[in-house]
Amino acid sequence: MTGPLAPDLARRILDEVRAGFEDQIRFTQELIRLPSLRGQEQTAQDFMARTLTKRGYGVDRWRIDPEDIRHHPGFSPVATDYSNAYNVVGALRPREERGRSLILNGHIDVVPTGPADMWSAPPFEPRREGDWLYGRGSGDMKAGIAANVFAVDALARLGYRPAATLYQQSVIEEECTGNGALACLVRGYTADAAIIPEPEDDRLVRANVGVLWFRVHVRGHPVHVREAGTGGDAIQTAYRLMAGLRTLEERWNARKGAHRYFEDLDHPINFNVGKIEGGDWASTVPAWCSFDCRIAIYPDQDPAEAAREIEAQIRESAAEVAFLANSPPEVEFNGFFARGYVLEPGSDAETLLARCHLTTFARPLESFVTPGYLDGRVFVIYADMPCLVYGPVSEAIHGFDERVSLSSVERITGTIALFIAEWCGLEPIDA
Amino acid sequence: MTGPLAPDLARRILDEVRAGFEDQIRFTQELIRLPSLRGQEQTAQDFMARTLTKRGYGVDRWRIDPEDIRHHPGFSPVATDYSNAYNVVGALRPREERGRSLILNGHIDVVPTGPADMWSAPPFEPRREGDWLYGRGSGDMKAGIAANVFAVDALARLGYRPAATLYQQSVIEEECTGNGALACLVRGYTADAAIIPEPEDDRLVRANVGVLWFRVHVRGHPVHVREAGTGGDAIQTAYRLMAGLRTLEERWNARKGAHRYFEDLDHPINFNVGKIEGGDWASTVPAWCSFDCRIAIYPDQDPAEAAREIEAQIRESAAEVAFLANSPPEVEFNGFFARGYVLEPGSDAETLLARCHLTTFARPLESFVTPGYLDGRVFVIYADMPCLVYGPVSEAIHGFDERVSLSSVERITGTIALFIAEWCGLEPIDA
Repeated sequence: MTGPLAPDLARRILDEVRAGFEDQIRFTQELIRLPSLRGQEQTAQDFMARTLTKRGYGVDRWRIDPEDIRHHPGFSPVATDYSNAYNVVGALRPREERGRSLILNGHIDVVPTGPADMWSAPPFEPRREGDWLYGRGSGDMKAGIAANVFAVDALARLGYRPAATLYQQSVIEEECTGNGALACLVRGYTADAAIIPEPEDDRLVRANVGVLWFRVHVRGHPVHVREAGTGGDAIQTAYRLMAGLRTLEERWNARKGAHRYFEDLDHPINFNVGKIEGGDWASTVPAWCSFDCRIAIYPDQDPAEAAREIEAQIRESAAEVAFLANSPPEVEFNGFFARGYVLEPGSDAETLLARCHLTTFARPLESFVTPGYLDGRVFVIYADMPCLVYGPVSEAIHGFDERVSLSSVERITGTIALFIAEWCGLEPIDA
Repeated sequence: MTGPLAPDLARRILDEVRAGFEDQIRFTQELIRLPSLRGQEQTAQDFMARTLTKRGYGVDRWRIDPEDIRHHPGFSPVATDYSNAYNVVGALRPREERGRSLILNGHIDVVPTGPADMWSAPPFEPRREGDWLYGRGSGDMKAGIAANVFAVDALARLGYRPAATLYQQSVIEEECTGNGALACLVRGYTADAAIIPEPEDDRLVRANVGVLWFRVHVRGHPVHVREAGTGGDAIQTAYRLMAGLRTLEERWNARKGAHRYFEDLDHPINFNVGKIEGGDWASTVPAWCSFDCRIAIYPDQDPAEAAREIEAQIRESAAEVAFLANSPPEVEFNGFFARGYVLEPGSDAETLLARCHLTTFARPLESFVTPGYLDGRVFVIYADMPCLVYGPVSEAIHGFDERVSLSSVERITGTIALFIAEWCGLEPIDA
């Protein structure tokens, strides 16, 4: 069948999601236990490949070769080794292609935990407490990957599969480059719509920012501290450069009125220095310091143009520091070099999502604008696909004691299952 | 013989120093090649033990046990492993103790090199260019250790040895705690005077500062950068705490008028942040940051009292940062906890040094006040000995392309040889 679901079927689907939900939690816990930090996503990806194979998906697991994607305008510089960088895509194909195809996408990579002693429990040891499931990656976004898999499972237990090609994508590098989702597109994976259940508090993302990553390298002139003042202090200088970049951040924020959907955000452009390292001896004026930055850009801002503004700002700040005249700071773009996107309202996919959401949540779907990067840009900008970034309530993503709301995950899973049933249509497995 | 040297003997001693100087340079180069960084001084110390044994010194090589020195008021906290922390002392004893005993002291440890690519040549590969000998530790202070050894050698080649006990001390940890020199004292080594040929531009140190090392640990509350502003940014906060410490530095400098010998220095108290490390992900508001500090204190400032002022300043700065209310920064004193000293003018040792210096340099000895730590404090404060910190011209100690002036080293060696001859007196080796 395709077209609107009978209310009775919708009810049965949601009941089946609920019936499978304890299994889904266990699956999510297994995923959390696999510490898929950058550069070590492979065990979690192997687990995903096994998961999809077991369920009858045709599984494509391939190593991302930067050479295959370097030409693409959505490519971000690669600063790490890709020798173990695998994407996994499972395809479920109908006997007859009657509905609309769909990509269910999620990223398997998680961000570092920080000092483990600042967690209430070990970060890769999932802990369930009331409605919360704790663990690094619980919200961002292993619960979402589990929702993708278990939404299809619920339909299968009812004897159905999608009546159009459905892809489950488990991608890497969403937290640093976006090259994982991009590699799927370059490999040829497209569909009539995509869903990414990122932790978005039960809402739909209308627009987001693009993101640039860069590392600034300052090199000074070290001397004994007894001669402090004659050497160039790279750590102090690093802070001057950061202060300069904060003025850039403010200038960009001041332009928000010119960017549709961003006019009403308090502070759409966030600049962050997330990592710093410098010097090696308390009694030596530090000769070098590097700091890692992340800054947002508006969807209509070109990353290359933004990069030039960043470099110009660094040059301007550096001009105030005499000792930098002979060794100007270097700016290394070492990750995200990615645009933001706008999900144009009015697509069939969004209309359907809103209807499914109303059924599961009994309240209208809200959309919002988020100042964070999303792989949705790959689908929207480079494949002209509606991409619905829509997922559960979470807390402390990227923080200590990251957690996701299980009741929210269950309802999100229900929404996705209803969406699949109506968007792809259903066909009996045993026909 | 003891007492003033015959002018002819003085001339022969200086000629002999010159005759041995190429050997002395080769010896210094061998010492530079041994990378006696903190925690790995042992190969250089083994070399020193062999050197002294070969020359007939009675050699005492022992591992410093923090428990042996912890009770001493000059002790600094130990933040590293001492399992390979060896001091070496060679003793040359006369047949008859007729003169005044002497300690020739030098530290074998060197500070880190920083990025090797900022050196013109590999830092532990000594390079001689005109009057300069380049290499990490060349000036600070392997040239000084060599001067100590070769001053005695020159006398030996003339058929003499000191007519009083002379100790050659090769100590560790001068660059971080001062516990090496302290351990010698606690082991019982004292004398009527001490010389330390630190790189002091052919001058005598009249007074110096004490030094404290400490690490400040900031712990924030990490969040996704999309929520920047709600998390506590530990890297930014570290900078605020540094700024607070700079106000402490200025308050201490403003008091310089109350400290004899420091009234006329531009800026006697230098505060330095020599190392920083924080965060682990560009897109996460950084949750922690640690920075390593060095600050000077006046000779009459008590390190414990200074430590309390430092902690109070950190508390005051932290009070302005809301998120620190529940996790105040920690201050860890992890190295120097050392007083400065004043060499009171008028000692016999200084008078003699001035006379010897005039002979070798043909100009009066100048004294000065240095804003750096010196092991001299161990002798002056805790053993009531005159300690003459007096050594060669150098450039870029603790910097890239550290170097020492060879013509200066030769004359310093001559001064030390003359000093030994007159202070200890001489006895014929073959009597």
